[in-house]
Amino acid sequence: MISKRSGQFISFEGSEGSGKSTQAGMVHDYLKKKNIPVMLLREPGGVKISEAIRGLLLDVKNTDMTKESETLLYMASRAQLVEEVLKPALKKGTVVLCDRFLDSTIAYQGYGNGVNVEAIKKIGAFATQGIAPGLTLLFDIDTEKGLSRTNAVKDRIELRSLDYHKKVRKGYLAIAKKEPKRVRVIKVNQGKEEIFEIVRKHVDEFLGIPKYPAPIRCP
Amino acid sequence: MISKRSGQFISFEGSEGSGKSTQAGMVHDYLKKKNIPVMLLREPGGVKISEAIRGLLLDVKNTDMTKESETLLYMASRAQLVEEVLKPALKKGTVVLCDRFLDSTIAYQGYGNGVNVEAIKKIGAFATQGIAPGLTLLFDIDTEKGLSRTNAVKDRIELRSLDYHKKVRKGYLAIAKKEPKRVRVIKVNQGKEEIFEIVRKHVDEFLGIPKYPAPIRCP
Repeated sequence: MISKRSGQFISFEGSEGSGKSTQAGMVHDYLKKKNIPVMLLREPGGVKISEAIRGLLLDVKNTDMTKESETLLYMASRAQLVEEVLKPALKKGTVVLCDRFLDSTIAYQGYGNGVNVEAIKKIGAFATQGIAPGLTLLFDIDTEKGLSRTNAVKDRIELRSLDYHKKVRKGYLAIAKKEPKRVRVIKVNQGKEEIFEIVRKHVDEFLGIPKYPAPIRCP
Repeated sequence: MISKRSGQFISFEGSEGSGKSTQAGMVHDYLKKKNIPVMLLREPGGVKISEAIRGLLLDVKNTDMTKESETLLYMASRAQLVEEVLKPALKKGTVVLCDRFLDSTIAYQGYGNGVNVEAIKKIGAFATQGIAPGLTLLFDIDTEKGLSRTNAVKDRIELRSLDYHKKVRKGYLAIAKKEPKRVRVIKVNQGKEEIFEIVRKHVDEFLGIPKYPAPIRCP
């Protein structure tokens, strides 16, 4: 079992207000309680340089940022996170949970903003050095409902039109359809505890965590 | 002649202390005096978002920036400059002079820092939307001599080792060897006025500027 769960990489994806960050935090706590070495990262950001890039990306004043520049900034932030944190953590056998990864760029910049998806994948392979999650949990929520759940103060991406966010959702579902084994769609239509039960089952299965702990045997 | 010189794009390349920025400025003045619509840009930077990215790139505190992230940040800055300024200017028939462009990334990040040159070219095609200079003036100077001519306060790239800067120079010369028609090597071994005479000849030829103005004919 150990070998199956060492160096495993799980990404959490979904459109605005899907609750993916909450679920990522809950999985983090769950694995920590099980004494499994685990690390939670977020994108864009996670390390100093990437947080600075995040600042540029989400700054509402940067309204004139082109879609190509935006795509490349996400990739630059990702490249830094991969080399500085993700790669060494996976090598050490840590389970890495990442709140957003390459699928976000494909869904938001590709499907949402019309950037060529094949180009994103090629640049993505460069930025990630080919490192990809083995399991992606995609939290799918009705677009209007999701947006109504985001903070009152919106960032540059959240401020985009409803039509844009609908395209993002469609993009995510298209990715899931292409890679059903890696990407598991979780409908956000119940409470966070109920959703976590579904999440936990996927995580247990992926990491090879047995449903019940082995009985303690007396020597 | 007009058609030949409308929407022309000239880049100025070279390693540290090669005097390319000075020459770019002199060409700018020269063309302005001739009433040719001209614009001088610099990379990384040139527009607000790109200048913010430039700040990240050249900040000496960002010592842990990975080579992939660095490459992608240069590309993001370039993508913004291309879409926001360069493309509209070329469309309007302006002669655009650019102090550094894609060749800089190939020389510095590729040859200098070991990033795959083919990957840089592919990402470059995405960032530039395929827009490339028709003429590139490469100012070639002995590496030690060049570095001794840079400012006393060095930026993050200038601070790199002599060996790195020597690789950059070799990279530039390799690019010139591959594309001798576009890339003209100018040896920096005399005064800036003498060098400008060589530069001016290349620019005149490229833009189709006659050596002597046509005689004024009375009606």
